[in-house]
Amino acid sequence: MPIYGAYYAGSRTVYVDRSDPIPPGPGEVRLQVAYCGVCGTDLHVYQGHMDRRIAAPQVIGHEMAGTVVEVGPDVSGWEPGDRVVVRPVDPCDNCPACRAGHRHLCHRLKVLGIDTPGAFQGSWTVPAHTLHRLPEGLSLEEAALVEPVAVACHDVRLAAVAPGETVVVIGGGPIGALNALVARHVGGNVLVAEINPYRLRLLRSLGLEAVDPRQVDLTELVQERTAGAGADVVFEVSGSAAGARLMTELPRVRGRMIVVAIFSEPPSVDLFRVFWRELQLRGTRLYEPEDFEQAIQLLAERALPVQELITDRRPLSALPQVFEELTAGADAMKVLIDVQQV
Amino acid sequence: MPIYGAYYAGSRTVYVDRSDPIPPGPGEVRLQVAYCGVCGTDLHVYQGHMDRRIAAPQVIGHEMAGTVVEVGPDVSGWEPGDRVVVRPVDPCDNCPACRAGHRHLCHRLKVLGIDTPGAFQGSWTVPAHTLHRLPEGLSLEEAALVEPVAVACHDVRLAAVAPGETVVVIGGGPIGALNALVARHVGGNVLVAEINPYRLRLLRSLGLEAVDPRQVDLTELVQERTAGAGADVVFEVSGSAAGARLMTELPRVRGRMIVVAIFSEPPSVDLFRVFWRELQLRGTRLYEPEDFEQAIQLLAERALPVQELITDRRPLSALPQVFEELTAGADAMKVLIDVQQV
Repeated sequence: MPIYGAYYAGSRTVYVDRSDPIPPGPGEVRLQVAYCGVCGTDLHVYQGHMDRRIAAPQVIGHEMAGTVVEVGPDVSGWEPGDRVVVRPVDPCDNCPACRAGHRHLCHRLKVLGIDTPGAFQGSWTVPAHTLHRLPEGLSLEEAALVEPVAVACHDVRLAAVAPGETVVVIGGGPIGALNALVARHVGGNVLVAEINPYRLRLLRSLGLEAVDPRQVDLTELVQERTAGAGADVVFEVSGSAAGARLMTELPRVRGRMIVVAIFSEPPSVDLFRVFWRELQLRGTRLYEPEDFEQAIQLLAERALPVQELITDRRPLSALPQVFEELTAGADAMKVLIDVQQV
Repeated sequence: MPIYGAYYAGSRTVYVDRSDPIPPGPGEVRLQVAYCGVCGTDLHVYQGHMDRRIAAPQVIGHEMAGTVVEVGPDVSGWEPGDRVVVRPVDPCDNCPACRAGHRHLCHRLKVLGIDTPGAFQGSWTVPAHTLHRLPEGLSLEEAALVEPVAVACHDVRLAAVAPGETVVVIGGGPIGALNALVARHVGGNVLVAEINPYRLRLLRSLGLEAVDPRQVDLTELVQERTAGAGADVVFEVSGSAAGARLMTELPRVRGRMIVVAIFSEPPSVDLFRVFWRELQLRGTRLYEPEDFEQAIQLLAERALPVQELITDRRPLSALPQVFEELTAGADAMKVLIDVQQV
């Protein structure tokens, strides 16, 4: 049976074509990909924003789950039939960041699906060190959410959200929603700021308190909720100038701001407020192995309502159209691609 | 003998006049002020930038050392003759910040010398809870530096500078210089960025490596010094847009940026870089009691070359002229006022 992949071929062009399986080399395994989610990063790629990193035409995609089908030389611990997800980062192990133990921040990091071919294809050959094993009760469909859940686990872990803390998430797309859900799971009192009506409804259906900051004075609301103190933690997931402004207004004295979003332009940041309240800000990027393990565990325990976040399931052949729809702002949260269905 | 004070009376106006001693009320002590340093904040006041907080005409000044001369009711532990410095902050003890233990960040904090009368006067009546005792070997002249040294101790403590770490201080005025000296004292390898030639020479005479970032590519220099990793800690003490830009360029992966400066305008901040390298930023303001104790100890141990930072000593009657000179950009680091000399 022929195997297919979806190739990015330059600004707003994606096509589906044959993709020949690549035999795994030393230290590699070949996977049969079951599902792969469409990420905001894929949309950036689709729009041509990351052409410097992509050797087009190239298969993209990195939020996947699948099964080991072939094991290369010098690989131990894996065999055909193992159900896995891929932590899609390949560090150099030799730069200052790797040597300091921050391999996910490697100066020469390769992200699988961007810097190397990705998972929108029936067969994917990857380094074995990227694999995480899936427990029995977790379906491959839900496991395709492990990667974005791991992002949220990383963010919430570095934010050190504690039970009873007031948490504001600015931006309620897939990553913002997952940040809110993971923060709630660890005991935070969560408030999400989002402007899209479809996403607001969806967030509310998950039991999250979600407000449109153009209609509600969020600063006032946070003051009310915290008896004038301010929020303990603010996640900036919008990447907008308005979000950067709101971010510094909301925290309490010594509160924490977490920059999750990718800002395409450096925004104005109220460093006077940072000084005045001794605010703390930190950036969070990707994930570390423990975040993947936590994400797998949360999904296996049914701790997060991820099924409700999967707003569409489409065959691989529909991916070009899906990219076009999402770029045009279609109502959606997480769209999964059934990679075996062409 | 009459007692005098220097009164701020509105934009660029300071005059010296009689200042009648105020008998200490319950919980208060009256001090004879020996020396009071001129702070950057005093210059802001002088230029009219803080008129909303100042009930002019009002005596300003807060970097002082002196002697207890009178003790009010309900004050224990202090008696006339005690040599002291004042930690010039008076929190409300009732707001969310005070209740959370961050009294120096009180929502209604009164800073003595700004929100209440200050130390550029022969007699100063203050709450007894603001006092710190001076050890025998420390002169009142050097002790007038305790307050700015405490700022630096606070900054370096919150930055958690560790021995062997590479530290960059952006801005080499009095606070930047003290940050550099305290960071060096705890074992940091310190580099100071400063553009004023007089200050560059002075910093170098203290054995500090100081460079003009307009002449030296500081980012490249830091890369060289750290084998491509980047700085561990960057103190932003310039309050400039250029400083805010440099601040995010220099740190290593997960490096720390400390916002010490008071930014009058929100600068652009490269939040992409913050995300990409998982940088950490925190604001630091004023000091806590332990910072004053550390500053007193460092000065008593002669651990910092503070005598070299005192670039001028002037009588109280010269203060109007000193403000004018410093506002015009005169060559100076720390100017001390002998408050008893009129």
